[in-house]
Amino acid sequence: MKIAVDAMGGDYAPLEIVKGVEKSRDQFSDIEFILFGDEAKIKAVLKDTTRVTIHHTDDMIEMGEEPVRAIRRKKNSSMVLAATAVKNGEADAFFSAGNTGAILAAGIFIVGRIKGIDRPALATVLPSVDGPHDSFVMMDMGANAESKAAHLYQYGFLGDFYAEKVLGFENPRVGLLNLGTEEDKGDEVHKEAWQLLNKAPKLNYIGNVEARELLNGAADVVVTDGSNGNTALKAIEGTALTIINLLKESILGGGIKAKLGGLLIKDALRGMRDKLDYTKAGGAVLLGVNAPVVKTHGSAKEREVANTFAQIHTMVQNGLVPAIQDYIANHADVIKVTANEESKG
Amino acid sequence: MKIAVDAMGGDYAPLEIVKGVEKSRDQFSDIEFILFGDEAKIKAVLKDTTRVTIHHTDDMIEMGEEPVRAIRRKKNSSMVLAATAVKNGEADAFFSAGNTGAILAAGIFIVGRIKGIDRPALATVLPSVDGPHDSFVMMDMGANAESKAAHLYQYGFLGDFYAEKVLGFENPRVGLLNLGTEEDKGDEVHKEAWQLLNKAPKLNYIGNVEARELLNGAADVVVTDGSNGNTALKAIEGTALTIINLLKESILGGGIKAKLGGLLIKDALRGMRDKLDYTKAGGAVLLGVNAPVVKTHGSAKEREVANTFAQIHTMVQNGLVPAIQDYIANHADVIKVTANEESKG
Repeated sequence: MKIAVDAMGGDYAPLEIVKGVEKSRDQFSDIEFILFGDEAKIKAVLKDTTRVTIHHTDDMIEMGEEPVRAIRRKKNSSMVLAATAVKNGEADAFFSAGNTGAILAAGIFIVGRIKGIDRPALATVLPSVDGPHDSFVMMDMGANAESKAAHLYQYGFLGDFYAEKVLGFENPRVGLLNLGTEEDKGDEVHKEAWQLLNKAPKLNYIGNVEARELLNGAADVVVTDGSNGNTALKAIEGTALTIINLLKESILGGGIKAKLGGLLIKDALRGMRDKLDYTKAGGAVLLGVNAPVVKTHGSAKEREVANTFAQIHTMVQNGLVPAIQDYIANHADVIKVTANEESKG
Repeated sequence: MKIAVDAMGGDYAPLEIVKGVEKSRDQFSDIEFILFGDEAKIKAVLKDTTRVTIHHTDDMIEMGEEPVRAIRRKKNSSMVLAATAVKNGEADAFFSAGNTGAILAAGIFIVGRIKGIDRPALATVLPSVDGPHDSFVMMDMGANAESKAAHLYQYGFLGDFYAEKVLGFENPRVGLLNLGTEEDKGDEVHKEAWQLLNKAPKLNYIGNVEARELLNGAADVVVTDGSNGNTALKAIEGTALTIINLLKESILGGGIKAKLGGLLIKDALRGMRDKLDYTKAGGAVLLGVNAPVVKTHGSAKEREVANTFAQIHTMVQNGLVPAIQDYIANHADVIKVTANEESKG
């Protein structure tokens, strides 16, 4: 399989991107990479060209640029060229650590929406501490500022495929993030989405889940609008970071006794951080487009970049996108429900 | 001042409610309590009747009941009687640890909306770790499933008064919870709310804040729709709980070394938990009604109940509600913007 890599996106590009590429290349014998970006800069850090091709370009999309305009104007940017390679069938998947909005725009407008999917959305894998599995997938994490019931319904299908094909869960439990667990909670969009998801033949729908129970394995697939998904993800990240920093400060500022205690629990803490580290599962995936389009954190280094390639490897190997395409092509009824709801919403 | 107490609401009612009442009565010499509920049960746990009156009733609203119907039908429930006492001027504030929806309905339909406020909303005080203050106020936390821009605008005013009069912050920084910090982020409601808040003469508006930065003191007043507010609050609570449990498990399951370390950092951990304990600031307040209406967690015990009475004491003493009423009466322009937006939204 071939992965098109935007080698210039991200805080540590191209160095850490190239390091991740090489690590992943050595890990998977069936991966080939095409790196799009400044050839001289890439060559300066690339140690071994085995299964790595460089496609030179001077241009790139910066972090602050307006996404859709950038994608339309910068035809020779590393990101647009990488996405175009996927569109033209020269590569099987797209990777970038750059401007998130531009990655979404490149995925939707260049790689292209799957026919029948109204709104591709961003899915993220998060850790699950008490559930039957050690992780769950949640979407939309903010690709769409507004979602109708029909979109939430489609996120359910897309997330279900991801949990099955990539995380390997059998009959994943699909839940709807909402204000409370009762059927009639939330605004009209959520009430309608509850009913649609409940009628969906393919899904193991378990109803509403609350943000308090996310990390406790409330569901294997959590469906949410982009606004609440983004809020939940950022609140989880922020709280985890704040508590871990507070813990450090409390130990370091707590005198000799606390410092000694801190040394003694160091291994235990490492185990805890490892459980919470969701970069192990890779980056955020734009689901609903014609190939895997994956973004990792702008601050990602070698390890996270390589983890993201491992995730892409699983997606391509297990045929995630063809499975979604086939299902939608063979279930016109699913699309129909969507279209009806779309015109109503 | 007199506080009307629903003595039958909450998991540990009336015992822990009565204990909280007595603790608070001993703390504040100017507080009087009227307890609404089962006289025999209350008397069985009440040690001293100084400044505590009991108003007997057999009826109460259960946790699972449909809020608005319960409020309308159960005229003799402890909750409705307590709210009615406030409405009739027999008490200055309302307290309950019962059915949240019913408390909101009692606040809005019995205590009554302040003229000019379209949607009373639920405000909660959360800890701030790195900011200029040790806490911040956030609203709406879920009283309203849907909010228009004009409602978010009003939450800004209400939260600003709370931060000033109850938390004692000077010129509090007001932020809007959104997908990103840029002015044009989010859906139409948030874009419009951004503009309204930015033009508000009274407010020290600092623009959008992200959920990741909430606990880091991003703003002193965080304005949000009920859905995202609820998601943020529950995600923060859930993540904090998960991490603290993981930490415990890691230490207890980490062998002798980790256990010894755990003992040594015990005091440091207590300090950390204390910093994160937002029940110190009291319960959730329904702002925008004609008197303080405050709910505490259903699982609240003596300490949290007493903390909530301390919060109510500050609200009544510092004239929070009259200050809001005066401001709105004297600023017809504020209400006008609202009305215009209301018809547009």
